[in-house]
Amino acid sequence: MNDKKPIGIFDSGIGGLTVAKRLSQTLPNENIIYFGDTARVPYGSKSNSTVIEYSIQDTNFLMSKDVKAIVVACNTASSVAIPELKKHYDIPIIGMIESGSVMAIEKSTNKRIGVIGTRATISNKAYSREINSIDPTVEVYEKACPLFVPLAEEGWTDHKATYEIVEEYLQELKELEIDTLVLGCTHYPILFSVIQEFMGENVTLIDSGIAAARVVKEEIKNTDLENESDKNGVSEFYVSDIPTTFKKIAELFLGKPIPDIKKVNLETLTV
Amino acid sequence: MNDKKPIGIFDSGIGGLTVAKRLSQTLPNENIIYFGDTARVPYGSKSNSTVIEYSIQDTNFLMSKDVKAIVVACNTASSVAIPELKKHYDIPIIGMIESGSVMAIEKSTNKRIGVIGTRATISNKAYSREINSIDPTVEVYEKACPLFVPLAEEGWTDHKATYEIVEEYLQELKELEIDTLVLGCTHYPILFSVIQEFMGENVTLIDSGIAAARVVKEEIKNTDLENESDKNGVSEFYVSDIPTTFKKIAELFLGKPIPDIKKVNLETLTV
Repeated sequence: MNDKKPIGIFDSGIGGLTVAKRLSQTLPNENIIYFGDTARVPYGSKSNSTVIEYSIQDTNFLMSKDVKAIVVACNTASSVAIPELKKHYDIPIIGMIESGSVMAIEKSTNKRIGVIGTRATISNKAYSREINSIDPTVEVYEKACPLFVPLAEEGWTDHKATYEIVEEYLQELKELEIDTLVLGCTHYPILFSVIQEFMGENVTLIDSGIAAARVVKEEIKNTDLENESDKNGVSEFYVSDIPTTFKKIAELFLGKPIPDIKKVNLETLTV
Repeated sequence: MNDKKPIGIFDSGIGGLTVAKRLSQTLPNENIIYFGDTARVPYGSKSNSTVIEYSIQDTNFLMSKDVKAIVVACNTASSVAIPELKKHYDIPIIGMIESGSVMAIEKSTNKRIGVIGTRATISNKAYSREINSIDPTVEVYEKACPLFVPLAEEGWTDHKATYEIVEEYLQELKELEIDTLVLGCTHYPILFSVIQEFMGENVTLIDSGIAAARVVKEEIKNTDLENESDKNGVSEFYVSDIPTTFKKIAELFLGKPIPDIKKVNLETLTV
């Protein structure tokens, strides 16, 4: 079947644009609808029931655009809301935690995996639970890196301060001799080079956007939902608020200019 | 009159604890009720109408504790909601922007004042409008410093990275030869020493918590609301959510252990 319907992605904010970028690279002819809930970011500090409610609203918005699959590009929503979303919607729903965990286990040879993320993701132990549910023999070491999000948003990818902060956060994981490191926050791929440089070439970094894009590719193939057009797909971007400097940061994350961003009124989002 | 009723403070989160600390130091025998809306932090990325609605809810909560004055310890709420709050409530309401601006103008001799804050506060030009409404001849230079909040929350008050970041953000203000610098975000007093060291002894830093505490002292004296007890006042702390590591950061900000923090259900906050 040649299915031209778009793939939907939602995130609590703009971090998920790094996932949209990977999705476009992996599936260049697919159309994409992005929704960033910038008015209610961050989800990480909110209760599980609130995150589930917001995730259903975000998904309903994407469904109203007739999407054929949903990527939950927010680590908090991925860890909390996916079972509920799968109950409500009969299309493929792909999260970050499972995709990243599966790829990390594949890449690791010494079975020592590091995971970095926001305070919320790390204190939930979302990745270590997922990784150990697949392979209980893997040692998982988790570390919260709260300064990486604002560093990424500032675009300080090559600043002296960034090197100092990377060393402060990651020295411990380096000493633990991990061979694989999951970037468990959608902002972190912006800091890929400096993290790779510090960890060394023997450590494989897992960009969970790449991992999720791979799963999406498999799922839409298996469910016969591929867009077989030979033209490049079109992406549309929606947000619930447009804060100052939004466009600059969004373009840094997406890796190219965003032609048009549409604002969605929160009142129109329903459960 | 000897008025034992407490003074209320609200903030979008825990930053306002630096203001509570200054208030206790300035008015040691006053009782204090603190409310931090940690479930809905930050206010800076929300629309004005939402910030006003939340500020009214926060104030109603404090009013239910029978407070005699309110300190709006959130720069966003101070810049957006105070006129509306003054319309609704007949007790002294003190904000950060006016208090800090008045003190900065008093301290500056060369009439060149710098202001640092979050992206939201700086892009609103809340301080420069306030300062220039009092004295149009003052030159105000504003600079957003988005990394200062997470640096303060990490407690990295003496880290190499902090010095690098302070230099990156403040070099420009130093070259502009300001003689007064307003710390226009309640988190920034945590970084007071490193900012002072970089700017040099000839630049006066304005801790807006100290400025607000001074205004509160005057207002409750003028309105005959002082607590004339010779005992130390009691402080109570309420928040709308208790995220991980909350207590550690809260105690860093308050400068002493917090004996007990009570959680308020968002559903009970009404407009």
